[in-house]
Amino acid sequence: MAGAEAMSKGTLYGVGVGPGDPELMTVKAWRIVSMAKVIAYLSANGGESTARKIAAPFVAEDVEEMAIDVPMKVERAPAMAAYDESAERIATKLDQGQDVVMLCEGDPFFYGSFIYVFERLASKFTTVIVPGVTSITAAAAEMGRPLCMRDDVLKVLPATLPADRLREELMTAQSAAIIKVGRHFGKVKTILSALDLYSQAIAIENATHEGQRIRKVGEIVEDALPYFTTIIVRA
Amino acid sequence: MAGAEAMSKGTLYGVGVGPGDPELMTVKAWRIVSMAKVIAYLSANGGESTARKIAAPFVAEDVEEMAIDVPMKVERAPAMAAYDESAERIATKLDQGQDVVMLCEGDPFFYGSFIYVFERLASKFTTVIVPGVTSITAAAAEMGRPLCMRDDVLKVLPATLPADRLREELMTAQSAAIIKVGRHFGKVKTILSALDLYSQAIAIENATHEGQRIRKVGEIVEDALPYFTTIIVRA
Repeated sequence: MAGAEAMSKGTLYGVGVGPGDPELMTVKAWRIVSMAKVIAYLSANGGESTARKIAAPFVAEDVEEMAIDVPMKVERAPAMAAYDESAERIATKLDQGQDVVMLCEGDPFFYGSFIYVFERLASKFTTVIVPGVTSITAAAAEMGRPLCMRDDVLKVLPATLPADRLREELMTAQSAAIIKVGRHFGKVKTILSALDLYSQAIAIENATHEGQRIRKVGEIVEDALPYFTTIIVRA
Repeated sequence: MAGAEAMSKGTLYGVGVGPGDPELMTVKAWRIVSMAKVIAYLSANGGESTARKIAAPFVAEDVEEMAIDVPMKVERAPAMAAYDESAERIATKLDQGQDVVMLCEGDPFFYGSFIYVFERLASKFTTVIVPGVTSITAAAAEMGRPLCMRDDVLKVLPATLPADRLREELMTAQSAAIIKVGRHFGKVKTILSALDLYSQAIAIENATHEGQRIRKVGEIVEDALPYFTTIIVRA
């Protein structure tokens, strides 16, 4: 249209939806998600999106959805290409003046895949981050066991780290949350045993989700656990 | 009353109210707080309770309030005596069959004073913990800066730790959140300078509260900052 004003750009929202129970979404996340016209979320290997499932009770019926299909492989190139492509699709929406609300399991800036999208778009668009409850404090709550107090050093340790690094960090932590345990459980179990930490280590699968399960590490015979397993160790 | 049934005991709720913005309370916290008949909260040195202030929009008008006045001193005995006394007051309510909802800034099990009450009562009463958004992910969100990703080791370091310990832990962290900075800022600043981490260290005072302030550590001339100051360091 001749004489039309330049459209203002949309805002990118990174919204933490918490660890699993929809009631653990914040009031702010609820407000933003329920008013969203366009939502985006990760779909690992084209499967169901956990974040989308958590937010389901709050999503409007006529919302436009953008699933970001990320191939999860050991090589990183396919995932990075998927983020490049998704960032472009999101940028197109934002350039058209539409807001895009990306749903993030847990907290967007706490080991979140949202960070890959944020890195590609934050310099060009206004971004708003809504923090969420992380899996580690949700795990402690479900276990009925304090995570850290007083002068405790708390370490968050991805189970993907080399065994030596995990061992060293565990030796000097008052409290540790080992995340992304999945297929690395065997390695983690060996380290915990060597450090005589069996009795203080508790594993939780799918915290606050369907299928939640809490067990002492010393009682688990499997060599692999679900990806969303967190082990809390208190020295 | 003769023949009265034994009253069932009340439940103790530890409810995280998040970092400061009332909208960062979870839907679950909102539900439990708004239905509470008895609430309890910490009042450091008899001053205003931050948790009470955060939850204010959701508290019922006719609620019964129990302020736990904790003397904050270097010696720990007066605080421990205050927790003993408060736990007894809360236990009396629970024994009468009334639920007690304790409001906790951030998350109840993440460096929370609630833990002192929990330790005194959890063996005798049913407890329910509602996790909350912590100050560290709220700080990252407000800074617009990811806290941790991929295989990062994240360390949460109370600024009250000895300088040597802080230095060693910082040297091997990809990401660190230094909490409870307050009067320890001078010590922390010296360590960050020695490790050449000035340019990657950002301080936030009163995250998501009134009086929020974000500055690079290298630009701060004061030797002390508010207690609720968090410094995020990314290697």
